[in-house]
Formats: sequence, C-alpha cells, structure tokens
Amino acid sequence: MSSAEMQLVALREYPQIASGDDLAAFAVDALRRGGLQLRADDVLVFAQKVVSKAEGRQVELATVTPGEKALELAHTVQKDPRLVELILRESRRVVRAAPDVLIVEHRLGWIMANAGIDQSNVAGPDSDCALLLPEDPDTSAMRLRERLAELTGCECAVIISDSFGRPWRVGTVGVAIGCAGLPATIDLRGQSDLFGRPLRVTIVGHADEIASAASILMGQASEARPVVLVRGLPARAPHRPATALLRPSGEDLFR
Amino acid sequence: MSSAEMQLVALREYPQIASGDDLAAFAVDALRRGGLQLRADDVLVFAQKVVSKAEGRQVELATVTPGEKALELAHTVQKDPRLVELILRESRRVVRAAPDVLIVEHRLGWIMANAGIDQSNVAGPDSDCALLLPEDPDTSAMRLRERLAELTGCECAVIISDSFGRPWRVGTVGVAIGCAGLPATIDLRGQSDLFGRPLRVTIVGHADEIASAASILMGQASEARPVVLVRGLPARAPHRPATALLRPSGEDLFR
Repeated sequence: MSSAEMQLVALREYPQIASGDDLAAFAVDALRRGGLQLRADDVLVFAQKVVSKAEGRQVELATVTPGEKALELAHTVQKDPRLVELILRESRRVVRAAPDVLIVEHRLGWIMANAGIDQSNVAGPDSDCALLLPEDPDTSAMRLRERLAELTGCECAVIISDSFGRPWRVGTVGVAIGCAGLPATIDLRGQSDLFGRPLRVTIVGHADEIASAASILMGQASEARPVVLVRGLPARAPHRPATALLRPSGEDLFR
Repeated sequence: MSSAEMQLVALREYPQIASGDDLAAFAVDALRRGGLQLRADDVLVFAQKVVSKAEGRQVELATVTPGEKALELAHTVQKDPRLVELILRESRRVVRAAPDVLIVEHRLGWIMANAGIDQSNVAGPDSDCALLLPEDPDTSAMRLRERLAELTGCECAVIISDSFGRPWRVGTVGVAIGCAGLPATIDLRGQSDLFGRPLRVTIVGHADEIASAASILMGQASEARPVVLVRGLPARAPHRPATALLRPSGEDLFR
C-alpha cells in the first residue's frame, strides 16, 4: 500500500550560494530553523542553480571567445555569441535553432533550451556571468545525499531539479536532472489494473513528477526558494539515476 | 509572498464510478470521512478516467466499425482496428505512427498518444470497452467546481489530470487537461530575478505541475486513487483554462 498523503516544505532563509559552499549543511540548518528533522524517507529537491553555484560552474562571458560556428548561430538565434559558444561547448548537437530559440542535446543527453545555461539569478544586472549545469548531476545528487547522511545519520533521497520547456505545451515544468536514493523512473510493466487488464501506462517519470511538485513552491522570481523537502512519498526502490529519464534516440520519434 | 508549504491528500475509499455519478458529492463524502473540510484555496485534482466514466464516455468496441483509414493505420501500429477508428474520430490528425505508437493531435489540440483513449481500469478483462476523454475537460472542471461550491459553499479550484508520455524523456507525467478557478499557466513576463535581471523562464505550466504532484499519489495500478486534494498552493489568479497550455502550432518546432 503506497502513501496517501504527502507534504512539501520550501526551506526558508536558504542563503545565497557561492562556489565551494556546503549545500547539505545549509539545508540541515534551514530544516532545523523550521523545526524539521530529516527522515530516511524524505526527499530533498535542490534547484540546479544552487548546485551549479556551489560547484563553481559560473563563467565570465568576458573570458569566452566565440568560434565561427557560435558567431553564425548567434546571428540566427539573436543571442550573445559568447553565450552561444558556451552552449555549443556544453552540447552534442543543435536540435532546433530559430530567433530566441536554441534547443540542443546537452552533452549528458538532455534535450533542452540553451544547454541549461542561465544568466538569471546569477549575479547583479551589470555582471556578464553565465551558469552552466553541474558537471554530472547524478553524481552531485549522490554526493549531497552522502553529505546529508554524514550530517544527520539519515539516508534521505536527493533530486536536482531544473525547469524545462516542452514541445506542444506552453510553460516550463520542473524536471529531474540528478537523482540519488530513489528511482527516477518507476517501471510498472507486468502490473495489472483494477480489473486484471495489463496497465497502459508502464513507466512513470517519478523523479520528474517530484521535481514538478517541488517547483510549485520554489518559484522563479525574487522570492525563489531553492530547496524543498518532500515528505510522505510512496515507498521507493530501487535507486535509478536521472539518466534513466533519457529516452534513447533510437526510440525517439521527435528528434 | 507565496506559500512555503503544501500538502497533498489522496481521498480514500473513492468509489468505482458509473455514468451519471456525482463526482463532486463523492469527493465531499470522501473528504468528510478523512476528517477534511474543503477550503476556498484548495485544489481538487480529478483523474480524467473518473470524469470520463461519470460523463458516460465509454464505448463498446463491438459497436465500432473501422473505416479504411483505421484498418490501414491499425496494421502499422498493430492495434485493434476498432480502437484505431475511435482514436481517429477523436483526432484532428496523426502526428506519428509506428508499431505500438500512435500519437495524434486530439480534436481539442492536445498532442498525445491514442487520443487519450484508454482500456485499462475501464471494466473486466474480458470486456472490450474503451474510454474516451471528457467531451470538454475545461467545462467539466468548471461544472465540478460549481457543484462543489453548491455542496460546500467553497469555491475551490479543480483540475482534471491525465498521464502523458513525452518526447525525449522516459516515463509519463501528470498533466492538466481541464482547469477551473486557477491559472493553468502563470505568466512571469516583466518580472525580475533576485538581482534585477529579467527572468529567463517566463511562463510556468502551473496546472501541469500540480497535476504531476497529484499523480504521485494517484498511482496507476490496482491501488489507484483518482482524487487528490492539494492544499497550501501559492495564491492563484486569474483563472486561465487548460487550453492555455496548448502551444500554438505556429510556435511549435516539433510537430
């Protein structure tokens, strides 16, 4: 019997993050201030942005020299050529390019806008800094989980979330790009419905649904809260990394 | 200041639904049994399946005669030609067809597998019944909302959810196909980040994120719980129907 109740709490007063900061320790402090104690069946969702900052993934645009391909593409998409250069360096290939739109296959396989590189909430409005995705978000999630266990004795699960746009639908939604201690996808193949018929839906994007739920509380603007505790999730096993959410290109009809 | 805490409760003992049933009254009863009282800032998420059943959207496959196009397409996708006929009747056009895959543009505009027609959880394993989407889910959501207000005096919001597969990513996630009393999308254009820079993410798929959160508790298999209460959402205004989540085809690079 899986859970019938779930609670989400955005951690308050989570500080601004700089390179090298201990995100797990900050989270434990913020939980404590909120009167909360981490449990083994909790999930902590960290916004990609704070993980990237802690990992020192900021790049000053002034240090980037755009190559020929970036210059050309920047013209098409009407973006800063230095930013486009960074996007290309983080990508395997360009999937779609149009004015204001640059969708790529990120080096880790995610199909996403701008290789996840962001300039908002990075530094002051006059700064020309870009923030890359974490080097390897599944590993980042695993490290955060280990550090949380060190600090609290609790092996909770960790998700690193980002906001992705989607074909066909308007609006971004939270998705998981890193995952530790829970299955990013849940495989229901072989299970039956209420009447004994095999289920139509066979694989569920579990970590993405959790990331979307957390995203509701995170917000996007100045009140942003980058860490959300999720409590009461249905039992989870086995661990499956966020890369399980990558649809193999051979099975994908929309590349 | 938006909310920092959110609670989701799947209603227990929600009954099996038949055509003509009063879904709102059942929900109010189930809430009462759970010791819960509806509040004006609550959202009730109803799985599409119960809404379709209550609206009598079941079709006996024995009553369906597949046309020529359905017979041909059924061969390609290896599905029952009568089911394919129903899918075509509910669709504007076929987007992709391959063995086991039939993605269409539903008559309401949703790009989705099988026009949302489902055979699981519909009736016994020997029955050949298919269940179509509600005739107009935004209107269904509005009616549910009105009926809930009649019963409780509370103008809560209502979402009708379904599970959609996605290009590029493995696994289905909950999405909103009907919506009343809250904005299906939240437009952040004009807002700034923590440092005064315009936000990168400008439109959020708000109702989809809520549907995904609810989907975690709904489950897919025999323990399915089709109605989920969401409490503590950030303030919502104005109302925007689920059709706001439809990306205009002229702006879509992936049709």
